[in-house]
Amino acid sequence: MITSTEANGGALLTASGALIEQTSFATIDAEAAPHAYDPDQWTLVRRLIHASGDFDFNGLTCFHPRAIVAGVAAMRAGSPILCDVEMIRAGLSQTRMAELGLVAHQFIDRPEVIAAARAQGTTRAVQAIRFARREGLLDGAVVGVGNAPTALLELIRLIREEGARPALILGMPVGFVSAAESKAVLAELDAVPWILVMGRKGGSTLVVAALHALMILTAARRPDHA
Amino acid sequence: MITSTEANGGALLTASGALIEQTSFATIDAEAAPHAYDPDQWTLVRRLIHASGDFDFNGLTCFHPRAIVAGVAAMRAGSPILCDVEMIRAGLSQTRMAELGLVAHQFIDRPEVIAAARAQGTTRAVQAIRFARREGLLDGAVVGVGNAPTALLELIRLIREEGARPALILGMPVGFVSAAESKAVLAELDAVPWILVMGRKGGSTLVVAALHALMILTAARRPDHA
Repeated sequence: MITSTEANGGALLTASGALIEQTSFATIDAEAAPHAYDPDQWTLVRRLIHASGDFDFNGLTCFHPRAIVAGVAAMRAGSPILCDVEMIRAGLSQTRMAELGLVAHQFIDRPEVIAAARAQGTTRAVQAIRFARREGLLDGAVVGVGNAPTALLELIRLIREEGARPALILGMPVGFVSAAESKAVLAELDAVPWILVMGRKGGSTLVVAALHALMILTAARRPDHA
Repeated sequence: MITSTEANGGALLTASGALIEQTSFATIDAEAAPHAYDPDQWTLVRRLIHASGDFDFNGLTCFHPRAIVAGVAAMRAGSPILCDVEMIRAGLSQTRMAELGLVAHQFIDRPEVIAAARAQGTTRAVQAIRFARREGLLDGAVVGVGNAPTALLELIRLIREEGARPALILGMPVGFVSAAESKAVLAELDAVPWILVMGRKGGSTLVVAALHALMILTAARRPDHA
């Protein structure tokens, strides 16, 4: 039986690895400060702690009220997963993705994205989001941003000004320039659900952990897994 | 001009992205608590902070006295880079790797590694390290462990009991089972230099950041980059 996936590796576990993960989750549950997350939200927050060794995510992680429901519905429908960098895509469990019929995309390395960024004096991350939209892969997608605040800000602009409608945004860019600010803007968005990590912390491993948590919740609710 | 690489993405930056990175580093320098790292060590620690948004790495990061020299020498010699998971390999800047003639490897997804782990009741990470040794890719390598304490412990065993001699170990496994303990064991190793993050924190993004820092230090010291 497939029980779980590794924190950062995207690979399925042997029995030995699965036991390590179960023990890890029990340790996190025992040591975590009291919180108000519901069980599904905690499944995700616990995985962020597991992937980072950092209990600050118990508290820094915030959920739009419809976030988990929207994420699970999108994954059940086989919606695209959009990542801001290849490292996130590489971290996803291919077995779990295939099980749910999911495909992950990233466009930051595309020559036309790089060329547009240079020509317009923007970041590649901004152009990659625009490229995804032109390709028809943004509406309905679960979008994971672990690195580029500029990608998150452009995504919010496309939602507000151009009617883009991804299913769920994982807003977890890391850093010291605009990361905290971009997440504060995201927290005010209501048209599209989001899950975010407040402040400067974030990164690819957190987005991978959040996507794995959503996949596990999705698999647990499918009729053939009940 | 290529000035830098992204925190988590492994992609080269546009001018706009490079400016963000420079501003980030200046912010980290301004806010970091006093420390005793030398300039090369700080280049690496600052990148760990940059990739995580977490100032705890100013303090948690420890260096064997020969670590930077050994890492730069290995990279200058074009030694193999061994990663415990694909996510690390995917996060490395391909442009920078090519510039230095470096190749990164990971073996955790190999069918023979998976089969051996199941047969012997160990983790895939342990078998992946053994596989690398059999392939002749361990001695002289820069080994980055961001996930599996079992890989780090097996690596230390191979060094102590079987004479394995990687050039440098980046010991940064994350987690709640054996991660802190495996790094405490690594800290007592003298036969092979190491850079480690004490405690439970760690992960793929930190290993990628550390490898990028070493690549930048290596490139800066090559005659054609002087």
